[in-house]
Amino acid sequence: MNSSTSERRQQAFRGCERFLNAHGPRRAQAELRLLAELATDHDADTYGAGGVLEELETQVATLLGKPAAVFMPSGTMAQQIAMRLHAEDANRETIAFHPTCHLELHEQRGYQELHGLRARLVGRRDRVIELPDLVALAEPVAALLLELPQREIGGLLPSYEQLAAQAEWARVRGVALHMDGARLWECAPYYGRPYPELCSLFDSVYVSFYKVLGAIAGAVLAGEPSFINRARLWQRRHGGNLVTLYPLALSARHHLERRLPRMAQYKAGAARVAALLASIDGIRLSCNPPPTNMFHAFFPVGAENLLEASTAIALQHKVALITRTRPCDIPGLSAVEISIGDAAEEIEDEELGSLFRELVARATA
Amino acid sequence: MNSSTSERRQQAFRGCERFLNAHGPRRAQAELRLLAELATDHDADTYGAGGVLEELETQVATLLGKPAAVFMPSGTMAQQIAMRLHAEDANRETIAFHPTCHLELHEQRGYQELHGLRARLVGRRDRVIELPDLVALAEPVAALLLELPQREIGGLLPSYEQLAAQAEWARVRGVALHMDGARLWECAPYYGRPYPELCSLFDSVYVSFYKVLGAIAGAVLAGEPSFINRARLWQRRHGGNLVTLYPLALSARHHLERRLPRMAQYKAGAARVAALLASIDGIRLSCNPPPTNMFHAFFPVGAENLLEASTAIALQHKVALITRTRPCDIPGLSAVEISIGDAAEEIEDEELGSLFRELVARATA
Repeated sequence: MNSSTSERRQQAFRGCERFLNAHGPRRAQAELRLLAELATDHDADTYGAGGVLEELETQVATLLGKPAAVFMPSGTMAQQIAMRLHAEDANRETIAFHPTCHLELHEQRGYQELHGLRARLVGRRDRVIELPDLVALAEPVAALLLELPQREIGGLLPSYEQLAAQAEWARVRGVALHMDGARLWECAPYYGRPYPELCSLFDSVYVSFYKVLGAIAGAVLAGEPSFINRARLWQRRHGGNLVTLYPLALSARHHLERRLPRMAQYKAGAARVAALLASIDGIRLSCNPPPTNMFHAFFPVGAENLLEASTAIALQHKVALITRTRPCDIPGLSAVEISIGDAAEEIEDEELGSLFRELVARATA
Repeated sequence: MNSSTSERRQQAFRGCERFLNAHGPRRAQAELRLLAELATDHDADTYGAGGVLEELETQVATLLGKPAAVFMPSGTMAQQIAMRLHAEDANRETIAFHPTCHLELHEQRGYQELHGLRARLVGRRDRVIELPDLVALAEPVAALLLELPQREIGGLLPSYEQLAAQAEWARVRGVALHMDGARLWECAPYYGRPYPELCSLFDSVYVSFYKVLGAIAGAVLAGEPSFINRARLWQRRHGGNLVTLYPLALSARHHLERRLPRMAQYKAGAARVAALLASIDGIRLSCNPPPTNMFHAFFPVGAENLLEASTAIALQHKVALITRTRPCDIPGLSAVEISIGDAAEEIEDEELGSLFRELVARATA
């Protein structure tokens, strides 16, 4: 694919009126207008103190049932710092996580290059970590990171009983347990338990504001007060203690309050879309029904054909179905992440099913 | 000072209508309204690509006369990364900078804790680095950081000839030269030379958008394309490659374009304020006239008395003169940073002189 193909496709998707994924595309002007409405002139924090940012930290700590929390620009920063601190406390440099962990795949090995930590990959990359994977660990580790849900394999979740058993395994061995809760918000309907109960299994929890919540950017790390105070020092070292972050904090607070009550609705939306896709010959899903609002779909056609067909549909129907694909090892198949938010609600079942069938027909033509 | 005293003072300063420093207090709502006016829905970058952010990188690279530039959330991040890369290139772990360098005072030693670099402090902490300080360096260093102007000692600047001689010293020895240009924008009137000429002495340059420019936050690191590409990898490791940063990029671009032409005016404003202060018995200045828009003033009274007097003036005249002090080792004196931007232009000479005299009279009463 050359850059003009990419540009042509992006233009087609930008011209759409309705969208399958999340809450539709990022709209700078609309978001800034909204924030300008919400803001007062006293909302700005200064180097992380005061303003909406400090209020948000308290609000999220309470929501997660943790005594302290710190807002950071990114989860990459928050999680490296959390793992670093757990490693220091354990006086061990080895940390354990799933082979598809964000730290392993998307952070240019910051945990190793900046913090001198070593990774011990746990479990098989095509399923979530299970208790026997932990029992089989041959070396002591400082901390274990569990990602809820496991994004790279289509948003799979362990059962609560599995989770509790793994937490108990860690507790007994003095292994700190950290939650990559980038998509924790979406897990509550599946577990049917309040956030504090889920988080109480973990020593530290990271949550994101820009994924299902659709805020601009930003993350919170929550845990014990002394842990969070030490995290603030490392945040400064990372260059993440900015003179002010009020646009991110305002956006995070607003979308948290607006969208957190909608998680069950998003999960139901994902189940609806999954059912429609599953009814089409040749399409496979990572799970059906999905435990959260997100899943992966595998189409019986190469990525270029799929994107070209989706572009044609965007031009003709002004609906953006699939705007990008995920890496996929199997020739002739393409993988797509589908994450349901507000946007898909504007497309009725009948129309969506018909668009999906047209998509596959065009792609395989 | 207890927290209620601090709160009472902050409230008095917040209630002011005019301000001595910079562009007045940070106003979240006003800034967001402005950005909402400026923004379009296509302004958002995605993980640092596209949108206003990418345009700003090109714009600033051109402005500084460097072939490439990368936007980062903070100077702390940008400078550690620059020094790390220079250290790698030189295969040496020692970097040199002034004893009051930001890396030494305000970053919790991130350069050491995250990057394993060692600092060699150069020169006396009460004046800028001079060529003999470099000649006296007993060990080889990977890189030398020069801060223009040297903020912590009241914004002092070396002459252009001194600067060029130090750059030549570095060039001959294969020592990379990095500019902490957090306040570079303000230096142009003093040197009377275009930015590219100043920057051509340096291998890498960091500039800030929130100091004299008054944007929300953010920084740019500029240099050779391969250097900047490597910096992007480290930015990701630091957790500084955010899903989007459009509020910061939009604000940076706007205030850069609006305020860059005003630098000579701000310098003249600082000269005016310095002259008014210097005419009052017992007040000392870091330099007079100041080479940039910024200087330090030393009052013949303790910090608590000075702030209390300034609070009284804020309540009575609705003018915020001095809202905080700097650390000062000399008992009975207090140190204040004065940085002139748009705000001071609303206070005429006669009134300002009279307010300063009232301030000292109240503080020493």
